[in-house]
Amino acid sequence: MNFLKKDNISDAVIRRLPRYYRQLTDLCNQGIVRISSQSLGQEMGITASQIRQDFSCFGEFGQQGYGYHVEELRREIGQILGVDKDHHLIMIGVGNLGHALLQNFPFAQTGFTVDAAFDVAPNLIGTMINNVPVYAMADLAGFIREHKVDVVVLTVPQSVAQDMATSLIEMGIKGFWNFTNVELASEFPEVKFENIHFADSLLTLSYRVENP
Amino acid sequence: MNFLKKDNISDAVIRRLPRYYRQLTDLCNQGIVRISSQSLGQEMGITASQIRQDFSCFGEFGQQGYGYHVEELRREIGQILGVDKDHHLIMIGVGNLGHALLQNFPFAQTGFTVDAAFDVAPNLIGTMINNVPVYAMADLAGFIREHKVDVVVLTVPQSVAQDMATSLIEMGIKGFWNFTNVELASEFPEVKFENIHFADSLLTLSYRVENP
Repeated sequence: MNFLKKDNISDAVIRRLPRYYRQLTDLCNQGIVRISSQSLGQEMGITASQIRQDFSCFGEFGQQGYGYHVEELRREIGQILGVDKDHHLIMIGVGNLGHALLQNFPFAQTGFTVDAAFDVAPNLIGTMINNVPVYAMADLAGFIREHKVDVVVLTVPQSVAQDMATSLIEMGIKGFWNFTNVELASEFPEVKFENIHFADSLLTLSYRVENP
Repeated sequence: MNFLKKDNISDAVIRRLPRYYRQLTDLCNQGIVRISSQSLGQEMGITASQIRQDFSCFGEFGQQGYGYHVEELRREIGQILGVDKDHHLIMIGVGNLGHALLQNFPFAQTGFTVDAAFDVAPNLIGTMINNVPVYAMADLAGFIREHKVDVVVLTVPQSVAQDMATSLIEMGIKGFWNFTNVELASEFPEVKFENIHFADSLLTLSYRVENP
């Protein structure tokens, strides 16, 4: 691998990386050893030249005439995404969505360890959900001071989302996985928000069902 | 409005439509009456020429020197997306994620009515969740025969996802909002799957946190 990351990699390229990673994981699981950019593109609905252009942002991958070694490329894209970085994460708000994520989402497969969850509900505080302890909100600031927290999963009600984010940024949090449907803002460019917009997805489906 | 939909509109354009709709809804709520493609682009991190190119797939919007009338453009994009179509939806699988969606997701704002939910759990069958009745799986085929169902929200366990989708397609379902993390497939091109890939989103955040 020739690791030469370009500056100013576009949002669209970055968003395709997890899709490549997912596709390559599937190919690995199917026992496929190598693949051409044509075949990879076909599986994903992307042109071969787009794939080569995307990868060229990060260095040199694959060999002319051979294509890509699936497992190697998967590992390299995983490294670019930080899957091997042992990221640490906490969740704030353990309602239905929080429960669903804690119980079903494979955090470890994406390189994240969930160290704690926080909620206001007395019946949740002190319990464990899928090996994750739930603490009181009063313990949040202390926890963040004493632990490495790379990302906060924000699954709180809309009404408190921005205030909560602002407090967390003051405590030094720089990554937010935001399920609140509120467009969070920060004056600090190093703070990153990744928003799950369920409505965008359903509206895309609405269009597709109407325009088959 | 000059409604002239082009054929073969790219996936990327279609996926930007809900983002335009969301942005325009925010602008409406802020009381903003008109906006230039430059300003709209700045708010969204898209170039003005990209916006004009996207809209040109669907006809003529806006006026040279005036820009776009926010409310009118919002209504027109809403129509393209089918927000005014009164789509009907049922949910299959009412676990934590199903509960979270039924209780918190604003289906009506995206033009969808949730008519029913289905589950295997005896303690859920016969209950109402946020005015949506939960029925037994045995009642599913009959319900679909007797009602218009445009979209199924699939929130079942991974192990049954593909079999469930295959049965539903045989019953005539053409739209799937798929939360199962299984890549569903169908031999019928008119069947549309919209997959929520939580992992893609978290990996994008992982990259951004590592590359600020």
